[in-house]
Amino acid sequence: MTGNVFGNRFVLTSFGESHGKCVGCVIDGCPAGLLLSEKDIQKELDRRRPGQSDLTTTRSEIDEVEILSGVFEDYTTGAPICMIIWNKDVDSTMYKYVKYEPRPGHADYTAGIRYGGFNDYRGGGRFSGRITASYVMGGAIAKKILREILKIEILAHTTEIGGIKAETKSLDEIRQAESNPVRCADSEAAKRMIARTREAQAEKDSVGGAIQCVVLNVPAGLGDPVFNTLEGDLSKALYAIPAVKSVEFGSGVDAARMMGSQHNDPFALREGKIVTISNYAGGILGGISNGMPIICRVTIKPTASIGKSQQTVNLKNMKETRINIEGRHDPCIIPRAIPVVEAMVALVLVDYAIQANLVPRVLERKI
Amino acid sequence: MTGNVFGNRFVLTSFGESHGKCVGCVIDGCPAGLLLSEKDIQKELDRRRPGQSDLTTTRSEIDEVEILSGVFEDYTTGAPICMIIWNKDVDSTMYKYVKYEPRPGHADYTAGIRYGGFNDYRGGGRFSGRITASYVMGGAIAKKILREILKIEILAHTTEIGGIKAETKSLDEIRQAESNPVRCADSEAAKRMIARTREAQAEKDSVGGAIQCVVLNVPAGLGDPVFNTLEGDLSKALYAIPAVKSVEFGSGVDAARMMGSQHNDPFALREGKIVTISNYAGGILGGISNGMPIICRVTIKPTASIGKSQQTVNLKNMKETRINIEGRHDPCIIPRAIPVVEAMVALVLVDYAIQANLVPRVLERKI
Amino acid sequence: MTGNVFGNRFVLTSFGESHGKCVGCVIDGCPAGLLLSEKDIQKELDRRRPGQSDLTTTRSEIDEVEILSGVFEDYTTGAPICMIIWNKDVDSTMYKYVKYEPRPGHADYTAGIRYGGFNDYRGGGRFSGRITASYVMGGAIAKKILREILKIEILAHTTEIGGIKAETKSLDEIRQAESNPVRCADSEAAKRMIARTREAQAEKDSVGGAIQCVVLNVPAGLGDPVFNTLEGDLSKALYAIPAVKSVEFGSGVDAARMMGSQHNDPFALREGKIVTISNYAGGILGGISNGMPIICRVTIKPTASIGKSQQTVNLKNMKETRINIEGRHDPCIIPRAIPVVEAMVALVLVDYAIQANLVPRVLERKI
Amino acid sequence: MTGNVFGNRFVLTSFGESHGKCVGCVIDGCPAGLLLSEKDIQKELDRRRPGQSDLTTTRSEIDEVEILSGVFEDYTTGAPICMIIWNKDVDSTMYKYVKYEPRPGHADYTAGIRYGGFNDYRGGGRFSGRITASYVMGGAIAKKILREILKIEILAHTTEIGGIKAETKSLDEIRQAESNPVRCADSEAAKRMIARTREAQAEKDSVGGAIQCVVLNVPAGLGDPVFNTLEGDLSKALYAIPAVKSVEFGSGVDAARMMGSQHNDPFALREGKIVTISNYAGGILGGISNGMPIICRVTIKPTASIGKSQQTVNLKNMKETRINIEGRHDPCIIPRAIPVVEAMVALVLVDYAIQANLVPRVLERKI
Repeated sequence: MTGNVFGNRFVLTSFGESHGKCVGCVIDGCPAGLLLSEKDIQKELDRRRPGQSDLTTTRSEIDEVEILSGVFEDYTTGAPICMIIWNKDVDSTMYKYVKYEPRPGHADYTAGIRYGGFNDYRGGGRFSGRITASYVMGGAIAKKILREILKIEILAHTTEIGGIKAETKSLDEIRQAESNPVRCADSEAAKRMIARTREAQAEKDSVGGAIQCVVLNVPAGLGDPVFNTLEGDLSKALYAIPAVKSVEFGSGVDAARMMGSQHNDPFALREGKIVTISNYAGGILGGISNGMPIICRVTIKPTASIGKSQQTVNLKNMKETRINIEGRHDPCIIPRAIPVVEAMVALVLVDYAIQANLVPRVLERKI
Repeated sequence: MTGNVFGNRFVLTSFGESHGKCVGCVIDGCPAGLLLSEKDIQKELDRRRPGQSDLTTTRSEIDEVEILSGVFEDYTTGAPICMIIWNKDVDSTMYKYVKYEPRPGHADYTAGIRYGGFNDYRGGGRFSGRITASYVMGGAIAKKILREILKIEILAHTTEIGGIKAETKSLDEIRQAESNPVRCADSEAAKRMIARTREAQAEKDSVGGAIQCVVLNVPAGLGDPVFNTLEGDLSKALYAIPAVKSVEFGSGVDAARMMGSQHNDPFALREGKIVTISNYAGGILGGISNGMPIICRVTIKPTASIGKSQQTVNLKNMKETRINIEGRHDPCIIPRAIPVVEAMVALVLVDYAIQANLVPRVLERKI
Repeated sequence: MTGNVFGNRFVLTSFGESHGKCVGCVIDGCPAGLLLSEKDIQKELDRRRPGQSDLTTTRSEIDEVEILSGVFEDYTTGAPICMIIWNKDVDSTMYKYVKYEPRPGHADYTAGIRYGGFNDYRGGGRFSGRITASYVMGGAIAKKILREILKIEILAHTTEIGGIKAETKSLDEIRQAESNPVRCADSEAAKRMIARTREAQAEKDSVGGAIQCVVLNVPAGLGDPVFNTLEGDLSKALYAIPAVKSVEFGSGVDAARMMGSQHNDPFALREGKIVTISNYAGGILGGISNGMPIICRVTIKPTASIGKSQQTVNLKNMKETRINIEGRHDPCIIPRAIPVVEAMVALVLVDYAIQANLVPRVLERKI
Repeated sequence: MTGNVFGNRFVLTSFGESHGKCVGCVIDGCPAGLLLSEKDIQKELDRRRPGQSDLTTTRSEIDEVEILSGVFEDYTTGAPICMIIWNKDVDSTMYKYVKYEPRPGHADYTAGIRYGGFNDYRGGGRFSGRITASYVMGGAIAKKILREILKIEILAHTTEIGGIKAETKSLDEIRQAESNPVRCADSEAAKRMIARTREAQAEKDSVGGAIQCVVLNVPAGLGDPVFNTLEGDLSKALYAIPAVKSVEFGSGVDAARMMGSQHNDPFALREGKIVTISNYAGGILGGISNGMPIICRVTIKPTASIGKSQQTVNLKNMKETRINIEGRHDPCIIPRAIPVVEAMVALVLVDYAIQANLVPRVLERKI
């Protein structure tokens, strides 16, 4: 399958460019009978939009979604749902140079190679973080199905920014993470993260960080080993988010330093239900969910767009040169990436849930 | 697609069970005209087999591959290649209990849920590390194509075991990693890793670790964003290996603590070729290879099979109980996982190379 | 994969409804560097639009295509191409009844079952012939690639309407078929077909017919047996056209009455090239093109929308009842189906050509 | 996906060659908990094997199936099921010439082009009718699931051989078709078909014919328009059978000569159930099953292997020449194609049934 189509039974086709006419997607495979309006989508898009705080870019992208198909008399029909955001007039003049002077850390160079120089380079084109708005649109529907049909809750939150790590917090605190601009459950660490980000911003630099995603109420038994493991499909989905450099489950990189007797989560009974006492597995064993919370974590590299002077090569005259990236960019992309992480996790889980017969093809019956 | 079929244009279908008649695979999509014999496959299988040193299980699995189809007069025909290893008589009696007393850290519990208790639990069945022999068979063909047609070299080696980290070493040293039983390029660290593993073994415990994989000569331009990123497909492939807990590219988890000005790899010219001075990107930008070495890393959890007493739940009487896993198991699986990592990386890359028109459908012409 | 996504390497995702906001599609996998404008698409859409003659419906659908993405500075970028036709205000009042009184020969009943009554029934919704406009949009790009890169020519023409069969005609005459309203290469038969269609129209009835499609210059060697045969994928594509009741290749149904000695096309040399003297195979042997013209034929049932009174069942009160379908419908859909047949054939062939490495990923180079 | 892998949720991977070591397949996606033994498979294979009557080839292929994986303690485990037939020693000497002197009507020429001359040409290799034994193995499992879980009955029978057409017969007579060697429900016509076949045999020639397949108890609502129509996927499946030249549904090619008022099947109530009075639709409307029997028909060309002298081209010296195909071949392949048609229909339907949530992932529960 081609690269802009994602999923097997709940399929998202993404289209559009950062500075083109629009960004949009088509969802095919959504069950019929889901009450759905633009508000359901807009709510998630608003969490991703720029300008939510002074920590994010102040560009005025107003991302208003329009549903073009697949919904009739307030319910999904089972037909493909096309959703679109029309881009506002944007000034692309400053991007002219990136075609021949690729920005370090960006996809300008590889996109030029891959598409023979025909790629729309303005604002990064298809490689812009803006394209993730299409993930969020589709993810909003996926989340709604998971929540309403299976009571699955997806909670992404910031665990690290610029070297500052959050303390482990309770689920209730995680649910409140959205209350601070860095979306961190540890409100003390959040303050330092904000200060650290402003510092980087002042230095025309940027910071990276990490996001943890906790998924509650995933029924045991999801996953199709040996190749369609839950970890495998979640990590493929998460790597579709620009800037992700690692995907971990449960113990993650720390597993390298643990003993088997410590890492093996013992099975136990709690209120007649089988649970594991610890959860180093991250809710997945043998690629299949075990009923415990799914725990995954992504590392996000520092924003590639920085104001500092950088070295590159001019592809026309094949000489080394230096560039300064103008414009107002996010010194830290982590907070805006949170809803995107949730969207990708939701897209995978709804696909798996449909494959496991857990989501009916028709949610209600009208006839 | 179902879970035992992997790839798009170079497709591996895995079958067989740990204690069943055989383990095997079918490769569909292999170009015609590749000189191929059982030796090409056996060589890689021998790197995975147990009993190579006293650090691995001393079980006597003799994995002798037989090619059943798709090769005629020494060359691949373009037809599906079925390869098989016949299992020798194995004693499965000690596995009887795992059906009702799932081993912590193993897939016994989730497999039972997923397959309603019909799964072949003997030796872990489809969830045994033994199944990765089928990855290695297919990967051997993939590696041969990559090497012969595209000069691509895949080098996995151990970078951490039981808390002992290897120093960064040169490519030449990495190519020599196979010379010690832990397959570590840092021969000093290797000694301590061996000691650490023996220690764990003596304690009836196990250790985890990490494997780095370096891929040389990958042409720039491989990858199909936004969803079919090279990172995404490689990580999905790597999570098919039991025990993997993280997949990182380039800077990986360290990106969280870096500044943009440090992480952005500057472009430069070296002998008329565009390179990046550093390689925090791990050879991939925007999901597309940039011509630099691809660098990825997996964390492997400590072997789940340990001799120590562990707590579990008896599923029949629904009571908590304790079990001791008998038998001779690998106190550290890292060295044997090395060829499996290489196989999975090769399977992804050959698929991408075919999709990018870099591998002809017929390698030579006979007519 | 879900039902509104078609293809493997050149993927069309169709969306929209007959009486909704729009009909559209996304093409993913189009090579970069193809000169493409709305005119290329419009030309094909105009061949499908109603009102081209008094034999087709006089409804005033003005199908003006807009390209929303994937084209930049006149060339395809390699990114997904979204194309859309905005529906004009249509009167849907007369369709209210079809939800509970399904029209014989239409999908009203099965769509209601499949989507639990949530399907947009207005004008047939997703089951309207209007949806084939999305096939034609994608097919226009496929045809352009096939023509410009591979010199492949696709010629569909009417061979039967209402029991009147056309004589076999030369390629030059077939190329002129568009000159009469029934698009028949046999201009004498065309006159009788027209008369026969008017007759049916006067009787508030409709007629069926057949379309032959000839494809010239298909290189030998396309096809991936045993399952991805050229016939198999072409027939699947053609059955996506509403009203198709049969798909034949070469001799088709007549093969049942032939002898082997007659049906086997003898190989011969013509100007140093291997050809077959006859072409009962229809240009395909063993599922693979043999270099001769591909010949296929579809039968199109008589238009299901007729003015005559018909029996149905009212799904609300579960009683048998009679309905009269109002409105102006095509008494014969064959002529308008011609560009749709060509589109589906083109979509399959361009996909196969890409898989066979016959179409570069970048058609020109700009960098 | 590559050409030897079929299906989406119930996936058959076919392998093996006519004169190689074996013919086999892997089924992935079979639900766990199906009682399955070699007998279930053998029964269907025996219907396909040669030598059942003097009308078929007298070659002594003894096709004894062995299940290699995926079944444990008599039940399917949910793991891939590998099934194999070991080929007996066969004399391939007479096939040596086909590499350079392709047989008319066979795939020798196109296979040589497609695979650069590396294809195993002995006995037709992958293009032999013998490969359909792998379809029958997988189809046997599919039929068993359809029959036991959904009460779906698949009845293929001969309707035409060598110009002799069978009268339309009752379901009971169709169920008895197997009682004569041509598998025709019309026992009078059967006699003439047999005579006609013997006549062709005596003339060293062959005859073609047609097979109708009736599928009973298919629930309404199967099908995923607009591209995954039931007709589309069934026809793709049926074209995987060598020698098929047409696939029709319901009225088929006769639709071209019908009026809408005649072809539209009126809806009616029978015992409180919605039915159609006629069934020109063949049980499918808008690509979705309507609850009536599915009726499809394939035309099978006369066997390509005939004893008569035929013209071909020698590919080595590029000269026209004549060949005589030796050996004992089926003068009519129709009777042996019957179980293959049923197998392909079953494979499609079980896949659709799984996608429609009609088949549980675990048929029984053991835990």
